[in-house]
Amino acid sequence: MKELDVGAVWRLLKPEVVAWAVAEHDGQRSICPLGWTMRTSATPPMVAISVAPSRFTHGLIEGAGAFVLAYPGRELAQATATCGSRSGREVDKFAETGVTTLPALRVAAPVVAECVANLECRVVDRFATGDHTIFVGEVVAAWAQDEPGKLLCLVDESAGYETVLADERFRFGVVRG
Amino acid sequence: MKELDVGAVWRLLKPEVVAWAVAEHDGQRSICPLGWTMRTSATPPMVAISVAPSRFTHGLIEGAGAFVLAYPGRELAQATATCGSRSGREVDKFAETGVTTLPALRVAAPVVAECVANLECRVVDRFATGDHTIFVGEVVAAWAQDEPGKLLCLVDESAGYETVLADERFRFGVVRG
Repeated sequence: MKELDVGAVWRLLKPEVVAWAVAEHDGQRSICPLGWTMRTSATPPMVAISVAPSRFTHGLIEGAGAFVLAYPGRELAQATATCGSRSGREVDKFAETGVTTLPALRVAAPVVAECVANLECRVVDRFATGDHTIFVGEVVAAWAQDEPGKLLCLVDESAGYETVLADERFRFGVVRG
Repeated sequence: MKELDVGAVWRLLKPEVVAWAVAEHDGQRSICPLGWTMRTSATPPMVAISVAPSRFTHGLIEGAGAFVLAYPGRELAQATATCGSRSGREVDKFAETGVTTLPALRVAAPVVAECVANLECRVVDRFATGDHTIFVGEVVAAWAQDEPGKLLCLVDESAGYETVLADERFRFGVVRG
């Protein structure tokens, strides 16, 4: 056990499940891929997500007071990379990625048909952290595929993962088997 | 894509990395295993953890204003199950599990020598959510094994995981390979 810089230790903390924050407000909508999400209450069911204030989706979540947390599978690795490298201020990420949207039951943002699972969330609280905002969302509806596949994760190079897409910043993959 | 109850969808969201919140205050210390953790700031580096107020460790974190987030590997699956099923009010979890502690550099709680990695965290904020508290911790020091092994996760029954320990509540495992 030795002391290291925080970044070096963080790089060890794989796998990290990827989720898309999907938000729609005032005629605009976007998708922001996140690695920093967690559950934060069982009753009522709540999730917490960390979103950088500079993100276009951040303003949409604030405006709408709601978001969908959509979990991509391996087929959406390229779409995840695209959504993570472009801004919703410049491109329509739904057109850019070609994903199919379905109306959500209880929030304005759409559900993504190709995702493994979707959680409809109403924002019940928000907190500033260092360089991000934590949005706490109560899960008001939940969706999943009939035969849900594996979740896309940020992974390392070990043999237990199938790397689906790797660039200079990220390595996306799924657990093998 | 079909609507399901939230619990059914949550069960699909695997893998979930396990971390121990380790805290020490006023001569008492304990270990609380968590599945609900995330990063929440890059600069300064911060993590957020969700801890139920009923947990003994919750009070220790509040008292100390600090915690260590320690990441167990496969060898600590039984220790994780033990720490999750007993209360630190009744047992000394360090004696019970036999883990080796090292003094942390910047917080009162100890670092766990057998863990894959340890993050020393100073609490910079706390928020109540539904039935949990989010503690936001600035990472003030970080540790890792010389040859870090795989992280213990909550897993499902798919072939890509080696199940290390399963009981009626939890299935702990690691990614194969």
